[in-house]
Amino acid sequence: MATTPPPPTPFGIGGTKAFNNTSLPSPDKMKLQISDDQIRDSLEGAQLKLQAERGTDLTIFSPRASAMGHHEGDAAVSEIWTTISNDMIHRAVSLYPDNFVGVGQLPQAPGVDPGNCIPELERMVNELGFIGCNLNPDPSGGYWTDPPMFDKWWYPVYEKMCELDVPAMIHVTRSCNPNFHFTGSHYICADTTVFMQLVESDLFNDFPELKFIIPHGGGAVPYHWGRYRGLAQAMDKMLDDHVMNNVYFDTCVYHQPGIDLLTKVIPIKNILFASEMVGAVRGIDPETGFNFDDTKRYIDSSAALSDADKQAIFEDNTRRVFSRM
Amino acid sequence: MATTPPPPTPFGIGGTKAFNNTSLPSPDKMKLQISDDQIRDSLEGAQLKLQAERGTDLTIFSPRASAMGHHEGDAAVSEIWTTISNDMIHRAVSLYPDNFVGVGQLPQAPGVDPGNCIPELERMVNELGFIGCNLNPDPSGGYWTDPPMFDKWWYPVYEKMCELDVPAMIHVTRSCNPNFHFTGSHYICADTTVFMQLVESDLFNDFPELKFIIPHGGGAVPYHWGRYRGLAQAMDKMLDDHVMNNVYFDTCVYHQPGIDLLTKVIPIKNILFASEMVGAVRGIDPETGFNFDDTKRYIDSSAALSDADKQAIFEDNTRRVFSRM
Repeated sequence: MATTPPPPTPFGIGGTKAFNNTSLPSPDKMKLQISDDQIRDSLEGAQLKLQAERGTDLTIFSPRASAMGHHEGDAAVSEIWTTISNDMIHRAVSLYPDNFVGVGQLPQAPGVDPGNCIPELERMVNELGFIGCNLNPDPSGGYWTDPPMFDKWWYPVYEKMCELDVPAMIHVTRSCNPNFHFTGSHYICADTTVFMQLVESDLFNDFPELKFIIPHGGGAVPYHWGRYRGLAQAMDKMLDDHVMNNVYFDTCVYHQPGIDLLTKVIPIKNILFASEMVGAVRGIDPETGFNFDDTKRYIDSSAALSDADKQAIFEDNTRRVFSRM
Repeated sequence: MATTPPPPTPFGIGGTKAFNNTSLPSPDKMKLQISDDQIRDSLEGAQLKLQAERGTDLTIFSPRASAMGHHEGDAAVSEIWTTISNDMIHRAVSLYPDNFVGVGQLPQAPGVDPGNCIPELERMVNELGFIGCNLNPDPSGGYWTDPPMFDKWWYPVYEKMCELDVPAMIHVTRSCNPNFHFTGSHYICADTTVFMQLVESDLFNDFPELKFIIPHGGGAVPYHWGRYRGLAQAMDKMLDDHVMNNVYFDTCVYHQPGIDLLTKVIPIKNILFASEMVGAVRGIDPETGFNFDDTKRYIDSSAALSDADKQAIFEDNTRRVFSRM
């Protein structure tokens, strides 16, 4: 890994998407029907091509968030699908060990004790060599019927994460609530919501080693940094001490002014380079002539960031947070 | 109204807050127990004092959003409370006609046809002289169980708004879902969610005269303006034509970098000066020595805004949107 490493943001490959089609045979049978060549074909034309074109060298390869689908079926379905998805990531990573390192999803289901995730969390780290997990704060898919992330409901997962020394990317999956467009609303709102849950609670007092990555540049948080500082202050808390030793924002913000705001108001130590690749916004920005999600350009172009800042964002922070890498 | 006019953002007065205490007698009795002097006392020490101190001259006086409480009780309760709340605003505005102009809430309730709002909407405009309304996109208080705002479910309200020529401030009330802190999450997420509902739908084709104000600087939208431009583009839509003839963002963003981003990426014609006053974030920012929510300072201090831009944001845009003013 050189100067421009891993997007710790979920994305997927063509192969894994196919499982979401309910007209197909059961996932257990499908597992056998994707060859290594098919995986290579899928990756060579997408993630690997974009790595080369955009100048990144190592990608943290995680499930396509929108396909985690924790609200589809029940806990048993979630467990089967999670196993298949994580196994597929493991195969991709094994085929390209210099390009990819794995992060997995958990077999969450709405209303189901997250303790059910422990065996798969152990398996993905200890057997598959993954360096982190995705954790969905709303397994209901847009109805938010499970407890907030500061609730003891979630503590079994946090205990295991700390024991294994892995961070969690806090990321919802697709929304089944018609109010929430998944990439335009549900994702960004979940980011914002979880951050505020962390502000209003004392979770990191109980888990000082716990590490959360909030994607999409922290949702609305940096734009409303004054609001969050003010709300925290009214609770006799300071964001720096209270959450910013444990929370990291990625750089999935798809225009220069947004990245400039992020890097201006959020401490550099809390920013991890990322791009949803291939992800939510795939077009070319007519204002720049480059892809909206080619986030490396925004960091490279930032006049306010020093070389040391860029090195921290591109690599050093990520290595610190993903300490098993 | 001189150069620094109306915050089109909800806030309330001490008097209206008291109704939210369920240990008090029924609202109908309470209505009689607040004297004009009590109203004056409440306002002189808060809104009027802050107007004078901060240099604004006319406030669009609307219900405290968190106290609209559409998820409390049922539609009948909502109707009683709405009438009392709007009557109280009318009394405040009548006592200080040079300082205030009224905007009212609607008797929404989760699962109830919004057509029930028509009589109160007509009353507040035609009888009370109000110039706009608050419209809650999630009467459930954080479970989002009603249809999205592009659904025909809402059309009776939109038809009446257009007929009366009044805009709506799109604002949720307090959350009863423990996942959503009201001012730190529910408000900002609702802003973001409704904007995306407008992007993905063609609501303004059906209602080209409809005007929505999205508070808190548009939620997460300006920070993720590249994402929204990209998502719209992928749907063969351009934000400028598709939504920005009908949607306005206020300036309730409580730090200079946020306001600078807002005014940089969002067309000036779509920005309306506002401050939640007295509202969500009441403390003094230790980084500036001034109140977080003293938003006039951020606009005044903006190096990028011309005098004409500031005049548009402070007054001209607001007069255009609130055309009955």
